Amino acid sequence: MSTPAIAAVDWGTSSFRLWLLDAAGTVLAERRSGDGMLTAGAEGFGVVLERHLEAAGASAALPVIVCGMAGARQGWIEAPYVTVPAGLDGILAGAVPVSGQSRDIRILPGLAQRKAAAPDVMRGEETQLAGIVPLFATGRHVICMPGTHSKWVEAADGVITGFQTWLTGELFSVLAKQSILRHSLGEVASPPSPENPAFIASCKQALGQGGDIGPQLFRIRAATLLQDQTPEVAAATLSGLLIGAEIASARRNLAPPEDKIILVASGPLGTLYAAALKLAGCSVMQADADEAVRTGLFEAATRMGWAG
Amino acid sequence: MSTPAIAAVDWGTSSFRLWLLDAAGTVLAERRSGDGMLTAGAEGFGVVLERHLEAAGASAALPVIVCGMAGARQGWIEAPYVTVPAGLDGILAGAVPVSGQSRDIRILPGLAQRKAAAPDVMRGEETQLAGIVPLFATGRHVICMPGTHSKWVEAADGVITGFQTWLTGELFSVLAKQSILRHSLGEVASPPSPENPAFIASCKQALGQGGDIGPQLFRIRAATLLQDQTPEVAAATLSGLLIGAEIASARRNLAPPEDKIILVASGPLGTLYAAALKLAGCSVMQADADEAVRTGLFEAATRMGWAG
Repeated sequence: MSTPAIAAVDWGTSSFRLWLLDAAGTVLAERRSGDGMLTAGAEGFGVVLERHLEAAGASAALPVIVCGMAGARQGWIEAPYVTVPAGLDGILAGAVPVSGQSRDIRILPGLAQRKAAAPDVMRGEETQLAGIVPLFATGRHVICMPGTHSKWVEAADGVITGFQTWLTGELFSVLAKQSILRHSLGEVASPPSPENPAFIASCKQALGQGGDIGPQLFRIRAATLLQDQTPEVAAATLSGLLIGAEIASARRNLAPPEDKIILVASGPLGTLYAAALKLAGCSVMQADADEAVRTGLFEAATRMGWAG
Repeated sequence: MSTPAIAAVDWGTSSFRLWLLDAAGTVLAERRSGDGMLTAGAEGFGVVLERHLEAAGASAALPVIVCGMAGARQGWIEAPYVTVPAGLDGILAGAVPVSGQSRDIRILPGLAQRKAAAPDVMRGEETQLAGIVPLFATGRHVICMPGTHSKWVEAADGVITGFQTWLTGELFSVLAKQSILRHSLGEVASPPSPENPAFIASCKQALGQGGDIGPQLFRIRAATLLQDQTPEVAAATLSGLLIGAEIASARRNLAPPEDKIILVASGPLGTLYAAALKLAGCSVMQADADEAVRTGLFEAATRMGWAG
């Protein structure tokens, strides 16, 4: 059995994932937890990281490559944004060392779009992009990266030329838990199946409205009062409306060539977006988001001479 | 000095307003408090009402006419919805008596739109509409009633033919307090001035997007990180985007004849919507919302023989 060459960490706002990889990039161990930036900021990033490294069986000298919110200003060590347009070489080469640690730890920078009228930032998704460069190495491409803050990225010949963010996941969460719609959705927590008729109907409806679902949201409340709508239908409807609106809005704003979309997503969310993009008439090439970020982290480690 | 003929109450989800009116509708006393349905549901609607009546100096026999959420299923006594299309006579005549009280108390019904694909409900706004009937007595009109849940109403020859709801006020609240944008807005609570350049710019931008502000919301966060945007500018931008999106969406959905809008609103929100509607190129006739609801309640009391 091979030995670990590096630890690769995707450190988000509310999630922490760590893999031990050998010199060929094979996964030897994995840890997932809720020790994101918010938790780690309180407990100490170094303490949290060492705890997970020990639990995964990492040696004391194993180097660590990190991406995500750990590199934010309010994170561990700020890894300043690389400005688009940017190739991914610049990102992978821009890792910032964390000083005062017993091992070599580097944090990858995020991407910033500094257009005055359309500022935007990402941290973590750029490493996923670095992991799927072959998919957009030539020609113009549009890449959809769904999540709490969905990113839609434009790339030309392997260079990230621009990106925009939709608050879809966060809108679902605040509307479902904090707004009047909470009375309709109740405790329904899991995403709907892509075959759910309410999801399909509401997604199609939103896809036909150019990104505007203004008058549709309160109807979820009214349907509970007037039409005995179940919480499951309410949740599937909200999900379909928000995802449909995001896709309609992104297509309107980005005009993907031939309506081809590279979808970078994992799990149920990936299944849901793939279904919604197909309802929109897009052709979808899907890459697994977990695999993409791991590949991107491994690429960065390789360039530092730690692996490969 | 004249004596009170009735007490008129607008009882919302989170607000309570009471006026003592003489037989000609003149205001003799006023009470405003946060004892809305949520508070009153816990303390008891009758207890809360009697406390305010006593403080206002009402006699023990003074009859009370009520509109708003007190008539909801989860309110005091359910006053079942009147279904549109509906003239306002039906609403004013449909008051439901509250039994077991020491005085005569009646609650006005709300309106329901029972179209399968576009269910909607209102409670309270129908009484404002009853108070401004002369403004839409002949011809087709579109009426904008901004608030937590903004209502856009279509009327033809004095009959309410349909309506739709935008969650604008609630979206502002949950985005400002619960989402990632809270880091940009901070504690800014008051609405912007309609002359605020950030409000005007973002409102114009949203007005040009047909109701879709998907990619604009996260830019508020990014502008804080990349452009040293102040919390005041962030709040004015969010306000302009949401109000502009509502107006663009409503115009797209309702096609107001000659772009004339009857705006029913009071205070700073009224000023803001009037400015935004003018930015949209609409001609605006504004009615005061407080006065409208009071007039509507007085009309209902008159039909019951309590006044007029």
